[in-house]
Amino acid sequence: MIARKIELFVPIITPFAPDLSLDTERFVAHAKALIVSGADGLAPFGTTSEANSISVRERMAALEALIDNGIHPSQLIPGTGCCAAVDTITLSAHATKLGCRGVLMLPPFFYKGMSDEGVFNAYAQVIDAVGSDLRVYLYHIPQMSGVPITLNLIERLLAVYPSIIAGLKDSSGSWENTASVISAFPYIDTYSASESLIPENVAAGGAGCISASLNVNPAGIRALIDGLNGPNHQALYEQVSAVRKVFESLPLVPAIKAAVAQQRSDPGYARVRPPFVELAAENADTISEVVLLAGSQTPQ
Amino acid sequence: MIARKIELFVPIITPFAPDLSLDTERFVAHAKALIVSGADGLAPFGTTSEANSISVRERMAALEALIDNGIHPSQLIPGTGCCAAVDTITLSAHATKLGCRGVLMLPPFFYKGMSDEGVFNAYAQVIDAVGSDLRVYLYHIPQMSGVPITLNLIERLLAVYPSIIAGLKDSSGSWENTASVISAFPYIDTYSASESLIPENVAAGGAGCISASLNVNPAGIRALIDGLNGPNHQALYEQVSAVRKVFESLPLVPAIKAAVAQQRSDPGYARVRPPFVELAAENADTISEVVLLAGSQTPQ
Repeated sequence: MIARKIELFVPIITPFAPDLSLDTERFVAHAKALIVSGADGLAPFGTTSEANSISVRERMAALEALIDNGIHPSQLIPGTGCCAAVDTITLSAHATKLGCRGVLMLPPFFYKGMSDEGVFNAYAQVIDAVGSDLRVYLYHIPQMSGVPITLNLIERLLAVYPSIIAGLKDSSGSWENTASVISAFPYIDTYSASESLIPENVAAGGAGCISASLNVNPAGIRALIDGLNGPNHQALYEQVSAVRKVFESLPLVPAIKAAVAQQRSDPGYARVRPPFVELAAENADTISEVVLLAGSQTPQ
Repeated sequence: MIARKIELFVPIITPFAPDLSLDTERFVAHAKALIVSGADGLAPFGTTSEANSISVRERMAALEALIDNGIHPSQLIPGTGCCAAVDTITLSAHATKLGCRGVLMLPPFFYKGMSDEGVFNAYAQVIDAVGSDLRVYLYHIPQMSGVPITLNLIERLLAVYPSIIAGLKDSSGSWENTASVISAFPYIDTYSASESLIPENVAAGGAGCISASLNVNPAGIRALIDGLNGPNHQALYEQVSAVRKVFESLPLVPAIKAAVAQQRSDPGYARVRPPFVELAAENADTISEVVLLAGSQTPQ
């Protein structure tokens, strides 16, 4: 098994102002709190970040704001995969130029039933345009994208771009799939999307976790990673599982934002862009419960 | 039943140059040929047009090229629905300002399982930003978007925006769904996505058809519409069905482009952007067959 550091990257929520423009101040404040609380880095503009509801320009400005306010580029793996290659290229080149560790890249996701050859061509087109400094983390989330990252596709990409394909985030929820990826490609960083899979991920030689609930429970998940071989590992696992279980009963993105709002005593964090709807007030008690389980965030 | 003109709008393919940039010259030539051959208008930047592989800027420039070259704005219903509202607003405002008859608007399509309330909010956000000159044709294509346009959603939108919601294109393939829409909302223009449903669509009070195969068989489909009540209607239906049937055995977008390339004796029309792959050479005979069935396009 490859010796590697296990890491936690947060798919950080994107706060919005009352007019639904991007709220950079709250974004930066939350980002810093997450790093202080134990995250190794951030994966902004993922699914939990409502990335696909945010324009190319807004994403670039927000990424620059993080770096300008003290998040080191090596701690950043922004999402850059759009439907149109020119947008993916623009975002990926921008992140690469800023020195980001890499980019988390969705395949083009409107068309379904595409061949591995077609999806390979889509990645190749972006990689060839951005150049050799790019590091790509493939984003497998078939339940949203409808376009899976197959083992065959990874193999083809690694054969042509061995120094550029750096890893994969498996948001499919299938441990079997994650295990296949780690086993077939042990040298790339394979992240699970749920902290509930951390023990399996680490034991199999994976790279850690990029999970929505890291927005709310970074210290708990950090403690689990650090204590995996310690005497309290079962209790630590139970804490993160209890938090996660509450979220599983609610619409995930609005619920994560509502919990951050309550943790930070700032209702502004709860706002979402359509097609999401802000969490209904009737769920306030459930959110209080999850915040109690997770504890407060490190204040800034 | 409402008296209405039955119309054919072509979801026109988007030709690309060898470097995969948008090929405006071929785009305009094909557009004009389609109008001359019997189409009432064009619905550029739909699914067949590879719209979601084309950037906002490219789409705006290409739409202007059509108008600058003699396609009347009243003949144009461009697709404008993107994942990010700001992009949808930019495209819809641009088309509206140019005087286009309306826009064909996908819902934001990355997130799945969204509530009707959330999708309503997404449309409302765009409509409110563009203003009262906008005319929206809702685009129901759940097999690609993953976000259906439900009867409840249409009802909510019509209640608030009765003069803006102008119609719907039903690409679901379900005649039952189309019939429900026409029956519940007889005053809006409801288009089928397959010419095979033209007889049902017209009999039920629908508005006609926006079909991929109109790129290849505009004269045949025009003849069917014009001859629906004539003595040859069965033969006309068989001609369009025979053409359609060939396409159903192939990857649709690459096959349509290959057929246009053969009809126009110009292989440049066959190019696709990833994630599509150009039709394999082994299908050339099948394409010849469909071109023979459809006949040549009116030369320009």
